[in-house]
Amino acid sequence: MNAQVANKAGKTSPEEVLNYMRERGERARGAARHVARADTGTKNAALFALAQLLLDERKAILAANAEDMRAGRAAKLDAAMLERLELNDARIDAMADGVRQVAALPDPIGEMTDMKLRPSGIQVGRMRVPLGVVGIIYESRPNVTADAASLCLKSGNAAILRGGSEAMNSNQAIARCIQRALRDAGLPEDAVQVLTITDRSAVGAMVSMPEYIDVVIPRGGKGLVAAVSNGARVPVIKHLDGVCHVFIDADADLDKAIPICVNAKTQRYGTCNTMETLLVDAPIADRVLPKLAQIYREAGVELRGCERTRRLVSEARPATDADWSEEYLAPVLAVKIVDGLDAAIDHISRYGSAHTDAIVTENYTRARRFLREVDSSSVMVNASTRFADGYEYGLGAEIGISTDKFHARGPVGLEGLTSQKWVVLGDGNVR
Amino acid sequence: MNAQVANKAGKTSPEEVLNYMRERGERARGAARHVARADTGTKNAALFALAQLLLDERKAILAANAEDMRAGRAAKLDAAMLERLELNDARIDAMADGVRQVAALPDPIGEMTDMKLRPSGIQVGRMRVPLGVVGIIYESRPNVTADAASLCLKSGNAAILRGGSEAMNSNQAIARCIQRALRDAGLPEDAVQVLTITDRSAVGAMVSMPEYIDVVIPRGGKGLVAAVSNGARVPVIKHLDGVCHVFIDADADLDKAIPICVNAKTQRYGTCNTMETLLVDAPIADRVLPKLAQIYREAGVELRGCERTRRLVSEARPATDADWSEEYLAPVLAVKIVDGLDAAIDHISRYGSAHTDAIVTENYTRARRFLREVDSSSVMVNASTRFADGYEYGLGAEIGISTDKFHARGPVGLEGLTSQKWVVLGDGNVR
Repeated sequence: MNAQVANKAGKTSPEEVLNYMRERGERARGAARHVARADTGTKNAALFALAQLLLDERKAILAANAEDMRAGRAAKLDAAMLERLELNDARIDAMADGVRQVAALPDPIGEMTDMKLRPSGIQVGRMRVPLGVVGIIYESRPNVTADAASLCLKSGNAAILRGGSEAMNSNQAIARCIQRALRDAGLPEDAVQVLTITDRSAVGAMVSMPEYIDVVIPRGGKGLVAAVSNGARVPVIKHLDGVCHVFIDADADLDKAIPICVNAKTQRYGTCNTMETLLVDAPIADRVLPKLAQIYREAGVELRGCERTRRLVSEARPATDADWSEEYLAPVLAVKIVDGLDAAIDHISRYGSAHTDAIVTENYTRARRFLREVDSSSVMVNASTRFADGYEYGLGAEIGISTDKFHARGPVGLEGLTSQKWVVLGDGNVR
Repeated sequence: MNAQVANKAGKTSPEEVLNYMRERGERARGAARHVARADTGTKNAALFALAQLLLDERKAILAANAEDMRAGRAAKLDAAMLERLELNDARIDAMADGVRQVAALPDPIGEMTDMKLRPSGIQVGRMRVPLGVVGIIYESRPNVTADAASLCLKSGNAAILRGGSEAMNSNQAIARCIQRALRDAGLPEDAVQVLTITDRSAVGAMVSMPEYIDVVIPRGGKGLVAAVSNGARVPVIKHLDGVCHVFIDADADLDKAIPICVNAKTQRYGTCNTMETLLVDAPIADRVLPKLAQIYREAGVELRGCERTRRLVSEARPATDADWSEEYLAPVLAVKIVDGLDAAIDHISRYGSAHTDAIVTENYTRARRFLREVDSSSVMVNASTRFADGYEYGLGAEIGISTDKFHARGPVGLEGLTSQKWVVLGDGNVR
């Protein structure tokens, strides 16, 4: 276990943190070679063992969590944070279930594709391989420890997990289950390391060690993501804003448009794929906006509209320019009437965050243009933006959502923790 | 054209460089949207026009190049650099030919794949899209200007090209052809910008503008790559060392092993996919090493061997530990006798650079283990390492070779300048 090096109660000097992190990194690099080669059966055996251990060690995990909760209350953590921190029987069951689901996913590693014969006589294709060492930085939820460990292991990567200090005891209790599961399956314990240093300098060290860490994934709010990315020398899978749009085209079927707009805004307010701005094509505005406004009013959604919107929807407050780029994460919706597809695309391109945008239309050509021309990680026709999610997309699990274009865009599954190397099969071929 | 802003003879202050680069970046970002949407016919029209213009403007290009050559000789550039800098009729023909070849490649943009139906009723898949703005940094060869411009344009990206100061006149003459070809095809001229500032601070500015540039590709030696990557805030497709190995397994067919080892070392000495270390399985060493040594001797290749090698090959000089990780790029070869596949893989993992490594064997299981367990961007069975190349792999063109694992590994073709976004087709679906 990792507990010896750092004194979690006391202060740790920057050099101590750096030395500790370098040692962790070196161990992870060594273990990565082993897990990269591990066969599917071995990796799954470790995952099934982990699922069972989480259930068997339920009492110890809950006791550790109770300690974190006590400390959290004493430190006056807010209610939302305490809610995320808390474990109970149902959450431990769900954690074990999640681990079993990862075991059930197909192993991405070793898959060979596109083995083409070339004129030279060689056969060339690609083999899917792990990235190596994955660093994951997260906040209060202790279930991420089991979740992230499973995903990294299944994709043949070693993992360095840095959870929040408020969840230290819970995370270490889960870590003990992970270590034992790895050992029982004959895999190196260093394949998953749960850090015992949680200060910010550990994060700084992680993103400055490309020799030991191949990618860092921050799982948390914008502040965390920005802090991790800033000055990073290791690639970071970033998830920033979700300013998502639905555009109701003049040729929309209102029986589709209304349920989609209601679902995209009201199913959950705090998620990144929630609609934040509604764009309505001018010719259809007077038929759809009053109906939608009534539903939103009943749901308690505050509307902020452009001038033309306010002529149709009297209760809408005037929208300022800042509203068009706001990620409310709340029962607030910006509404704008636009003149046609081009104006809608221009608005999305100017104010959007390239996360998820949808068009509602029965017009084939405009649907195709929207798909092609809107430069967002998910583009949709006649579907709620709320579908932008790894599980809904069939990825089996979601490691994170990328708002970058490099490497991966949108929901990232196991494949996002892999790369492809080239394989050449010859018969004595020379150039 | 870009020539107004900077005075290439005089000094440019850091703020002037930064302002210049920001303005270039902003223009590129604006143009990127247009080229991303351009259809294949339009992009190809620009490429065919460029190919023709390079031939039509041959005299002007050669005159500009003659000016660069004069200045280069006056500045006492070395012979190799002058050789790379020089253009002639044949090289201009080759440049035009290269542009036409890029036009003939399939358009990667817009391709939709894996459109799966999900239980929710939505259909989900991916669409290939450009990265956006690509920065390319290169040295003396002016042909890279036409080459890089074509590849970026074909893949729907805007490009910012920063060539070497020694090739300024040649690059600007080619840039004039590019600008006219873009204009003639109805594409924005800012889609390809050839910088007129060539000092190092321009490179520093390029890798510090993630808001304007999505990826930077240095095409040049290790020094350039290291300088570009250092402190970069923009993703860099890096190409570092090529310490490539061939392992002759005990079950190798010598009629394959000998031609492969000769080709991998002697076909070209200065390329990154040239074999630098030969590993020989102990049981076969006395049958293969003396024969190979004789061929290498005749080819003028100096051998540096381990002790066991030197017992079989008297002229081999003793190899030091440094030899095992040396990229000679010269007629020098390190040779080591190892005991079996595991020892070979251990050696490659310890001293190699994860570029390209090959096994020569008739043994099925060891061939598979080598492919799976050697963590290099190209792994080969019974083929020369010299095949590790975009053209040989059928990519049509090579943007660069990546020694990273994130995004792309090994030879990078047009696909390396693209990403995939998610596409969701629904029929009014909600969550």
